[in-house]
Amino acid sequence: MKRPQQPIGLFDSGFGGLTVMKEVALALPQENLVYFGDTAHLPYGNKSPETILQFALNNATFLMNQNIKLLVIACHSACSHALQTLQEKLPIPVIGITEAGLRLAEQREKIAILATTSTIQSGIYQKALSHKEHFAIDCPLFVPLIEEGYHDHPSTRLIAESYLNSIQGKVDSILLACTHYPLIKPTLEKIFGPTVSLIEPAKLCAEQVRLYLTHNHLLNTQTEFPSLKFYVSDDPEKFKRLGKIFFGKAIEKVEKK
Amino acid sequence: MKRPQQPIGLFDSGFGGLTVMKEVALALPQENLVYFGDTAHLPYGNKSPETILQFALNNATFLMNQNIKLLVIACHSACSHALQTLQEKLPIPVIGITEAGLRLAEQREKIAILATTSTIQSGIYQKALSHKEHFAIDCPLFVPLIEEGYHDHPSTRLIAESYLNSIQGKVDSILLACTHYPLIKPTLEKIFGPTVSLIEPAKLCAEQVRLYLTHNHLLNTQTEFPSLKFYVSDDPEKFKRLGKIFFGKAIEKVEKK
Repeated sequence: MKRPQQPIGLFDSGFGGLTVMKEVALALPQENLVYFGDTAHLPYGNKSPETILQFALNNATFLMNQNIKLLVIACHSACSHALQTLQEKLPIPVIGITEAGLRLAEQREKIAILATTSTIQSGIYQKALSHKEHFAIDCPLFVPLIEEGYHDHPSTRLIAESYLNSIQGKVDSILLACTHYPLIKPTLEKIFGPTVSLIEPAKLCAEQVRLYLTHNHLLNTQTEFPSLKFYVSDDPEKFKRLGKIFFGKAIEKVEKK
Repeated sequence: MKRPQQPIGLFDSGFGGLTVMKEVALALPQENLVYFGDTAHLPYGNKSPETILQFALNNATFLMNQNIKLLVIACHSACSHALQTLQEKLPIPVIGITEAGLRLAEQREKIAILATTSTIQSGIYQKALSHKEHFAIDCPLFVPLIEEGYHDHPSTRLIAESYLNSIQGKVDSILLACTHYPLIKPTLEKIFGPTVSLIEPAKLCAEQVRLYLTHNHLLNTQTEFPSLKFYVSDDPEKFKRLGKIFFGKAIEKVEKK
């Protein structure tokens, strides 16, 4: 029997999922949250489907041991290859960031999906959008550029142009289907100008979590000061330092798994 | 009792160590070689010392099970954190690529060491060169840029300049202390011109292996067609595709560990 006081668990390969946790914390300020960043194995976006699935299973097991009531897969690469398996295997609800991404993409015409190589190779966006014109483009250097603080550097603009010049004038919406990519918005805005919308799924994902908990009477209403816990598989100090860029505020304490 | 027919083992986090294996194969064309690329955990250069040591121990165990007579750590990041431990723990000789790097750096004045963040943070080059002027600069984006085929792209030049502008005119030698970096030489040559030497330790590392085997009567003289074996922890197909850029020729067969 799940109880409202149990935490919501979220995992990502490293830092990007903190952009999702930020939205979940804003939408559900009374929930206890526990985040796991698999920093020993990052990035996921250039690994094979089998390896990503194995990492995802390990991460879910760790979070289940934290007694979570609901799991959010806050990583598109992991979601693309592990969402269905985790939904089948785990005894708790599992919500994936790609579900929000797909819903938002469905609502647009002339859309481009930008994501890691592994997300694009999974084909989940292409299958769901096969009835309409769309572009699916992998941008493998965006994650390291963002993690090294180069998201607004001229070199990143050159790389973004090399990925995206072919869709100039052909799209009116771009889905940022990697949890790192919100940080690269200023560069994309310079390239595409104000007429192209840049869509982030994190807010809708948080809303899906809120709706699920509401309908299932699992909203936590008893905590004034919810706990936010952070675990990683490598280098807690680096996670603290880099994490605040993604989370939008300081992260006080990070523990190694 | 070691026998000459046993293979030499080499490991790296992924692809870069193939630039070392290429030199070993050229210097010792009759040796059986077995390579392990830890592609499920790459890159190492942004991981912590403890995690890199654990990966290195796992890789060495796998290669010991291949019955190797000598181990080459063909990765500066792994060497910086695991060479001493592996030399103490393993019952076979262990030669690290950083040993050749340090020897070459010692011979130069006004030298800059370019490496991953983890190699630079280990301080091994700075300690060894503390008696003379030197620069130690981490270039964390070089590995992903090279692995994505951007080593000669204008964006890479901008990033290299952002890392290296501060040493313009101050050095006459640059040690490429990461096994990926030989591929970025054309970009560095454009920035530094012909008066600055770019030094690669792979050839000297291969020579150190040759000398050790010669002095210890372990050279293989019995094989006309030595076997070159390749193992990875993830995605053998990608390793075949990308590996030939580093190895300089096609890699026919890659097995998953």
